[in-house]
Amino acid sequence: MLDLVIENGVVVTAAGASPADVGIKDGRIVQLGGDMGDAERIIDAQGNYVIPGGVDVHTHLDAPGNGHSSADDFLSGTIAAACGGTTTIVDFCQQARGQSLHEALDVWHAKARDKAVIDYGFHIIVVDFTPGVEAELIELPDEGVSSFKLFLAYKGAQMVDDRTVVRTLHQARRSGALVMVHAENGDAADFLVEQNLAAGNTAPIYHALSRPPLVEAEATNRAIVLAELAGAPIYIVHLTTRGSLDAVIAGRLRGVDVSAETCTHYLYSTQDDLGRENFEGAKWVFTPPARTVDDQALLWDALAFGTLQAVSSDHGSWSFGEHRQRGRNNFAEIPNGAVGIEERMMMVYQAVNQGRFSVSRFVDLVSTTPARLFGLYPQKGSIAVGSDADLVIWDPEAKTTITQSMLHHGGDYSLYEGQKVRGLPTTVVSRGEVIVEDRVFVGMAGRGRFIKRKRFDRGRL
Amino acid sequence: MLDLVIENGVVVTAAGASPADVGIKDGRIVQLGGDMGDAERIIDAQGNYVIPGGVDVHTHLDAPGNGHSSADDFLSGTIAAACGGTTTIVDFCQQARGQSLHEALDVWHAKARDKAVIDYGFHIIVVDFTPGVEAELIELPDEGVSSFKLFLAYKGAQMVDDRTVVRTLHQARRSGALVMVHAENGDAADFLVEQNLAAGNTAPIYHALSRPPLVEAEATNRAIVLAELAGAPIYIVHLTTRGSLDAVIAGRLRGVDVSAETCTHYLYSTQDDLGRENFEGAKWVFTPPARTVDDQALLWDALAFGTLQAVSSDHGSWSFGEHRQRGRNNFAEIPNGAVGIEERMMMVYQAVNQGRFSVSRFVDLVSTTPARLFGLYPQKGSIAVGSDADLVIWDPEAKTTITQSMLHHGGDYSLYEGQKVRGLPTTVVSRGEVIVEDRVFVGMAGRGRFIKRKRFDRGRL
Amino acid sequence: MLDLVIENGVVVTAAGASPADVGIKDGRIVQLGGDMGDAERIIDAQGNYVIPGGVDVHTHLDAPGNGHSSADDFLSGTIAAACGGTTTIVDFCQQARGQSLHEALDVWHAKARDKAVIDYGFHIIVVDFTPGVEAELIELPDEGVSSFKLFLAYKGAQMVDDRTVVRTLHQARRSGALVMVHAENGDAADFLVEQNLAAGNTAPIYHALSRPPLVEAEATNRAIVLAELAGAPIYIVHLTTRGSLDAVIAGRLRGVDVSAETCTHYLYSTQDDLGRENFEGAKWVFTPPARTVDDQALLWDALAFGTLQAVSSDHGSWSFGEHRQRGRNNFAEIPNGAVGIEERMMMVYQAVNQGRFSVSRFVDLVSTTPARLFGLYPQKGSIAVGSDADLVIWDPEAKTTITQSMLHHGGDYSLYEGQKVRGLPTTVVSRGEVIVEDRVFVGMAGRGRFIKRKRFDRGRL
Amino acid sequence: MLDLVIENGVVVTAAGASPADVGIKDGRIVQLGGDMGDAERIIDAQGNYVIPGGVDVHTHLDAPGNGHSSADDFLSGTIAAACGGTTTIVDFCQQARGQSLHEALDVWHAKARDKAVIDYGFHIIVVDFTPGVEAELIELPDEGVSSFKLFLAYKGAQMVDDRTVVRTLHQARRSGALVMVHAENGDAADFLVEQNLAAGNTAPIYHALSRPPLVEAEATNRAIVLAELAGAPIYIVHLTTRGSLDAVIAGRLRGVDVSAETCTHYLYSTQDDLGRENFEGAKWVFTPPARTVDDQALLWDALAFGTLQAVSSDHGSWSFGEHRQRGRNNFAEIPNGAVGIEERMMMVYQAVNQGRFSVSRFVDLVSTTPARLFGLYPQKGSIAVGSDADLVIWDPEAKTTITQSMLHHGGDYSLYEGQKVRGLPTTVVSRGEVIVEDRVFVGMAGRGRFIKRKRFDRGRL
Repeated sequence: MLDLVIENGVVVTAAGASPADVGIKDGRIVQLGGDMGDAERIIDAQGNYVIPGGVDVHTHLDAPGNGHSSADDFLSGTIAAACGGTTTIVDFCQQARGQSLHEALDVWHAKARDKAVIDYGFHIIVVDFTPGVEAELIELPDEGVSSFKLFLAYKGAQMVDDRTVVRTLHQARRSGALVMVHAENGDAADFLVEQNLAAGNTAPIYHALSRPPLVEAEATNRAIVLAELAGAPIYIVHLTTRGSLDAVIAGRLRGVDVSAETCTHYLYSTQDDLGRENFEGAKWVFTPPARTVDDQALLWDALAFGTLQAVSSDHGSWSFGEHRQRGRNNFAEIPNGAVGIEERMMMVYQAVNQGRFSVSRFVDLVSTTPARLFGLYPQKGSIAVGSDADLVIWDPEAKTTITQSMLHHGGDYSLYEGQKVRGLPTTVVSRGEVIVEDRVFVGMAGRGRFIKRKRFDRGRL
Repeated sequence: MLDLVIENGVVVTAAGASPADVGIKDGRIVQLGGDMGDAERIIDAQGNYVIPGGVDVHTHLDAPGNGHSSADDFLSGTIAAACGGTTTIVDFCQQARGQSLHEALDVWHAKARDKAVIDYGFHIIVVDFTPGVEAELIELPDEGVSSFKLFLAYKGAQMVDDRTVVRTLHQARRSGALVMVHAENGDAADFLVEQNLAAGNTAPIYHALSRPPLVEAEATNRAIVLAELAGAPIYIVHLTTRGSLDAVIAGRLRGVDVSAETCTHYLYSTQDDLGRENFEGAKWVFTPPARTVDDQALLWDALAFGTLQAVSSDHGSWSFGEHRQRGRNNFAEIPNGAVGIEERMMMVYQAVNQGRFSVSRFVDLVSTTPARLFGLYPQKGSIAVGSDADLVIWDPEAKTTITQSMLHHGGDYSLYEGQKVRGLPTTVVSRGEVIVEDRVFVGMAGRGRFIKRKRFDRGRL
Repeated sequence: MLDLVIENGVVVTAAGASPADVGIKDGRIVQLGGDMGDAERIIDAQGNYVIPGGVDVHTHLDAPGNGHSSADDFLSGTIAAACGGTTTIVDFCQQARGQSLHEALDVWHAKARDKAVIDYGFHIIVVDFTPGVEAELIELPDEGVSSFKLFLAYKGAQMVDDRTVVRTLHQARRSGALVMVHAENGDAADFLVEQNLAAGNTAPIYHALSRPPLVEAEATNRAIVLAELAGAPIYIVHLTTRGSLDAVIAGRLRGVDVSAETCTHYLYSTQDDLGRENFEGAKWVFTPPARTVDDQALLWDALAFGTLQAVSSDHGSWSFGEHRQRGRNNFAEIPNGAVGIEERMMMVYQAVNQGRFSVSRFVDLVSTTPARLFGLYPQKGSIAVGSDADLVIWDPEAKTTITQSMLHHGGDYSLYEGQKVRGLPTTVVSRGEVIVEDRVFVGMAGRGRFIKRKRFDRGRL
Repeated sequence: MLDLVIENGVVVTAAGASPADVGIKDGRIVQLGGDMGDAERIIDAQGNYVIPGGVDVHTHLDAPGNGHSSADDFLSGTIAAACGGTTTIVDFCQQARGQSLHEALDVWHAKARDKAVIDYGFHIIVVDFTPGVEAELIELPDEGVSSFKLFLAYKGAQMVDDRTVVRTLHQARRSGALVMVHAENGDAADFLVEQNLAAGNTAPIYHALSRPPLVEAEATNRAIVLAELAGAPIYIVHLTTRGSLDAVIAGRLRGVDVSAETCTHYLYSTQDDLGRENFEGAKWVFTPPARTVDDQALLWDALAFGTLQAVSSDHGSWSFGEHRQRGRNNFAEIPNGAVGIEERMMMVYQAVNQGRFSVSRFVDLVSTTPARLFGLYPQKGSIAVGSDADLVIWDPEAKTTITQSMLHHGGDYSLYEGQKVRGLPTTVVSRGEVIVEDRVFVGMAGRGRFIKRKRFDRGRL
């Protein structure tokens, strides 16, 4: 007897959409269509899409910053994710200076255990590139950590030099890992920050003006060149602008295996938001900064035509009331980060209403391709026989107006406050268990599991 | 009771691959996984992939040319297609001068009826752009003909001027059709042909030298610009070279909805093949001509990274022994065309063996995306509940050496003669009926049906 | 004894600027610096630049259009040119349908003779490409007509097809001529004109909206590709926009010998000018249309960095009071053309005041390089021993506000009305004869001579 | 009475070529054309060009390297320059760690004084960017040192980080200096060197394979981006390849004032030269390495069409017999550098014979534009009244075969050994003094003077 049947819905995968019932047993999908026989529970999805649970491969929960922790731990953060339709996250574990990568992972495992309500994996952020760390990079994919993150910005903190980049890529190539790069030229940004502060330009808008598009485009190009020289694939995080997209395309034309994501907030905000009155602009201090409406159009097109592969949240929540106030007199002291782990899927879905791309492409961008690139597929990101029963019943006609009070993250505002949306997740299933019902979270803390991810292999994606 | 169950195979879709049984009834897929109950017939696909039947959207069967017909009619051509794993083709119906589009379609319906062994649709080639034709373009999508083809080459025959191009695009936008363009600058090619003939350069290699990459790249750019000005989507057929790919990418960056295919033969041959001795080079006279090994690598990468959408055969068979001999003393009189309707899928599949891309991407390129772009999805190109049971059992370990005698087309040679391949279609099912069994065609002439295709709509792909 | 000495000025050439006296005899420069001995006349140029007379290679004097002639004949037009500092023009002789090129040239010789007050040459516009015309193209350079002009726009009038373009380029290569191309896709522009008129959009602004940047960029790329295939050099007239500049640069990177000019009005007007009230926008109806301030910046930079070679006037004057009123109810009936033969040099010079480029580069752009490209150098465009004494005393401190009443052309308005300028030609010398003195024309009608121009040869420029 | 008259020659400047006599007094040109009166000396230049003396803005004389000095001091190096037609060099003064820039300049003044036979200036190489150095950068242009050089390669030696680059550019903008960049990604090159050495690849060819085109292109792009962010002009030294040229062009299209040179050896050698037998390849170890014949064609075109501004020698001579032998077992220990201070002009001139560009463009590339960009004009690089009488009589018909024994530099081989050339400098005049006569050096050691160079100012070039 099946544990759960979702009937009468339209099953949507990255490949297309067709009406079919879904049969679930022992946490997995076991049957599509046909006679389901008896079932413990039947959910009627009439008039709804049934989609794979979202996969958000760029989150920063319980993240350190200037001696504080971000507003979300793995409990509030994953509840918010689940309520937004996301059933798997890959979060960033950050090495501290002097620490081994395994020590860092231990810290992050402890942060997530007993708290996470959905499944999760970790990328490792390499900060301190010692010979020991270099050796660990070879081992980590065996342990299910098959992606490494590098920052080209934030000198004195996460920033690494090109030698570290190229050597990390070299190790990743050897071990089957995918290197992710935060691509901004840190020295250039620091120069502009100093120039602005020296000129008395302290308001949030100068955050954006100190990190113009070229700062990102240059670093994107450099990272891709280093990947090519190392013979390694590469993944560009939070791409925002034309110059970076040009670098991605140019890399592919030279044969480099480059993937790239953008984030929700680049699709909905612009540099002008940083200029909002009463220090409100500080809410939009994230990195890279928001760009222009032309860039938004470019990103939407790139998502539609397959030039970009994914939309992540880059969720790193710092409250306005407390955290961001530190930068009242100096934009450089505002902690960087965007909220959006819950809003991500509903905001991206609006493009389907607008005819920019299909519901199938939506699924591909927020679930399937991120799962494939980061070694989670077909366990995650899929509605197929044998896949984990991570499913979302998505009501294309449900409407709401986004407001902070309806959200579940630990911060105190939404970047999308007041936006009217149509198309919402109503029921969320994780490994066969209903954890969100009628938009109410009904799961248990700590039920999420660490997922050992597979190696990156273009020939098996 | 099910009509047919294919069990123990690995079901591959454009979204991924998972082991699952497939249940079929009344020509459709009705169940994936689970208890299948009884079935009229069970096929064991252990150790095999089960993939959607191939969709070849670029074939020229029973095509006219200099008073002759090509070597394949809809019987031999579709048998060859089926034996290669293709279960749907979209063939080109060509308007004759003075003829209405409906009259042309009547001719093509007659050619296919009673002969085709697999399902088929028609694109319409617009040659004579009268006001009446302009009006017909609005009507055709209602009749399931939702794509129009234009040639920018072959002056005096199919070539149309830019006015026709932009107005056809305008009508296509209004009626929801997709315009396909053969992009070569006909005047430029004719100039080079004349120069070469005047210089006594009559050998087949001069076919390639008279149609250098720029001839194609210029026309590709022009077509895309005209699509942009008309606000219409566009599909570039048989793209072969860097300059054309640049134009496609540039168009997308400007927001134009451009899709593009390459063809099998551009992945396996080069200009040098036209220089083969004893007039053998004439076998490689197709248009655009084969390019270089660098172009091959570029095309493979573009297929892997999603820059190109599909691989078609452009099957237009002219025999070496008879048809091509006409051009013994003048390359310009060799009828243009490539064979490959049967070889297409097996040749593209070799990339999976080489690790260039996955079996899932293979399915996407030869079946799913062509079906989506040309309004056949989810009826075709899909393994999902409700889709037509057009399926191929693909044995990834089966090996053969391609040779003309094993092929089923009406021509007298293969461009891939002697190539060793691994991975072959062994059983082919069309609408639930096994038409190829153990690589032997067992179907009936005329069983294929005309498929009314849906309109092109990016928001529903 | 010298006929004329200009002393105490700063002699400016394309290579630089140095104080030097200039000695003239028999219409030629015979001495720079040193003891000049006696002279018939001495002009003190203290505080002034002494520059080569301007060379304007793009003028349409006494031009036909819809059964009218433009507002300037060779008398008023060349007086205006002279007063603006220009001492040589190359005007466009346009073939009529059915006419031989020699017959066309006879007509233009007759128009200029007895009227022109400065020296002049002719380009030939090929409209009707018969075998006879094709043969004439080989002969014309011997007669001093070493440049051919083709239009890719204006179907039914000047527009030619790509066959004509490539064959004309082929002949030009053989005979040592330079082909100039008006690069706009005529069919695309006509389509947009029709769409606009059908929608009731009849105001002048729709002239611009019917000829968007892509219409130009596409044709520019196409022309350069055809030049490459023909192995011929090419000159793009009135380039206005980024896409065209990209095509020029791409051509050069492929090794094509591409030169390009922009025109004065693209540096000072924008599309918004076509929207001026009370039909005033009609004054800005010229082709291609004015673009944006970003394009202006791009063009200025391209002039500064050597990406563009020249600034011409494209002077074709149609009065506002009479000619342009024909298009009151239909922008497509407004005769196209810009005034500016007199304003050209002073408007370009303003960039020197702004520090965009040096006075030497100014001379290069308005005199030396046009002279070199079109076979006039070193007779024209040069201050060197042996060159024609075509000189301008340019007062860098003289100021004026441009107004129609101070100008000498036959039209009834200036595009630069009200613009304040600093830096003016005060004295103009043509072949040693002072023809403008204190900004007053003092020359004789008909004193100008036809100049037989040399062939184009990159190795001798 | 004039000191010297050069009569009957064809005077060539960057603006063109015309027959004229040249009159010289007190080291300066005082008269062109006209009656010269008496003269101390008259040289008949019948049948010859009279060109401005060459200006080589990229030389490394008496340069340090691994505890040795290069094979040329300022005596042998400037004699070689003079015999090759070069009358001014700008050499690189390199700061040592811990040294102030003024101390470094003192060292270089001492090296040149009493030795140089032609005039010279200094660029300063910034290695150790202390606050004191940052302050000195503001002062140096006042002292005639108006260009700063930075290396993006050679970590642990000259390489600086991006912070130094952007801050140096910032200071240069403030002080009117031009920053020159050696653009190679040092970390990337070091990685490839390590990989090659680890693999036992020690031969000279691995020098080239460790510094592929992307290593240069990436750094070129980065340097230009940093210049843009700092609002400063920039000069790219020894550009060799397409990717770098693309970055230069892209920068200009964004409005960055980018100039760039290539060097003689990139026009004549390829990567294959590094593979010559018997360790001969070591002679071609210079940085960036030689590329391909396609790159050569690209560079020649870029010189012809004005995309590149200059050809320098980058003369840094290390003997084959002694210095280069150090790298017998390890290519990374071969001292980098190319010989060519004497061959530069004759090798570039061969393009005139081939019709690639004119003799006037030749003068522009090897003399006038370098002089303008580096603040030497019109004192140097010019044949105009008032300019220094630095002149070369260039015999376009003189032929020779280049061989080491005819050259004057301190090294032991020529990269151009055995090349037949036509067009040679026969007489060289420096400040009115004949220092080379009939190809024999007749000047005095130490006669050269340090030239205080002017600031860079695009509006005055």
